[in-house]
Amino acid sequence: MYTRPLARLIEELQRLPGIGAKSAQRLALYLLSRPAEEVEGLAEALLGAKRQVRLCSRCFNWSEVDPCEICASPRRDGRTICVVADVRDLLALERTQEYRGLYHVLGGVISPMNGIGLEQLRGRELLARVGKEQPEEVIFAIGPTVEGEVTVQVLARYLREVLPGIRLTQLAFGLPVGAELEFADEVTLARALEGRRGV
Amino acid sequence: MYTRPLARLIEELQRLPGIGAKSAQRLALYLLSRPAEEVEGLAEALLGAKRQVRLCSRCFNWSEVDPCEICASPRRDGRTICVVADVRDLLALERTQEYRGLYHVLGGVISPMNGIGLEQLRGRELLARVGKEQPEEVIFAIGPTVEGEVTVQVLARYLREVLPGIRLTQLAFGLPVGAELEFADEVTLARALEGRRGV
Repeated sequence: MYTRPLARLIEELQRLPGIGAKSAQRLALYLLSRPAEEVEGLAEALLGAKRQVRLCSRCFNWSEVDPCEICASPRRDGRTICVVADVRDLLALERTQEYRGLYHVLGGVISPMNGIGLEQLRGRELLARVGKEQPEEVIFAIGPTVEGEVTVQVLARYLREVLPGIRLTQLAFGLPVGAELEFADEVTLARALEGRRGV
Repeated sequence: MYTRPLARLIEELQRLPGIGAKSAQRLALYLLSRPAEEVEGLAEALLGAKRQVRLCSRCFNWSEVDPCEICASPRRDGRTICVVADVRDLLALERTQEYRGLYHVLGGVISPMNGIGLEQLRGRELLARVGKEQPEEVIFAIGPTVEGEVTVQVLARYLREVLPGIRLTQLAFGLPVGAELEFADEVTLARALEGRRGV
């Protein structure tokens, strides 16, 4: 039904996450209606990103340079390493502009159900790095799911073996700013109570 | 915050309709994590579609060849032309596998508010084509909006001048198949009553 090159484009677009048959058709027809420069710009951006962006060999952030911009910056504090599951979490933390230390991207969380242990993540690299760099603190910025908590506990145990006396912390859990207390779920509320602070 | 080629990719993706900042980031990071062949495949599909697909000079459908596959097919009945506002409508009709005639893609509907008259659409081309091809019937497959109705009325008047005696029809409006009568809106219900048929 579609002319061949259009069918191929729709097929390729449909392979992207969150893009179904309808969205793929809509995007493909939109692109056909745009000037050639615009479509070429998108194609070049795709190829450029894939060719030029690599994983940082120190923290596993995506970067054009290795070590990445964050690891190489003289303004970042190498005494703190923040462990995140995913690059998206790193980007979310960077958006706060509150954190000045370094990162370590695990690439997921421990999930026995899905066959993901420390070996499938960059856990070994974290232990080696902490042994070598001797940071003062490792902050776990990992979501409070069951799997996230297990990941933190397992890594914490190994990190204490590698570097006894290291300060290990994790993000505070509690009420989201602006949230109505009555609508908070019980687990969040329990965590907020447990983590209560002096006023 | 993003490494340069990644920032550029996110920016390009965000220009697409229906793709916001979050989706663009998600798509870009997904693509970075995929094999190079896959990203190259998408880039090639984009360039291939844009380079090889043209508008059919007869019906204004997108096609690799001119006239398009539908116009050129000996199995299509040239005595009927179905007028649609958009290529997506043509594709939706093709999916029914019920229509064997030709099409004419207007490229929109008359909309004085947006400065779109027959001149901005392929209305002149339709009139010239009908004068030349002398079809027996023109079917308007245009949605029952105010602007759609105006478009049909205006085109019908001109078509009768060009080819007196031509059969002009439009799609039936009524209850969607499988719909509960009590949930139909009044306008649809009124149209369904007006268009009632013998049983």
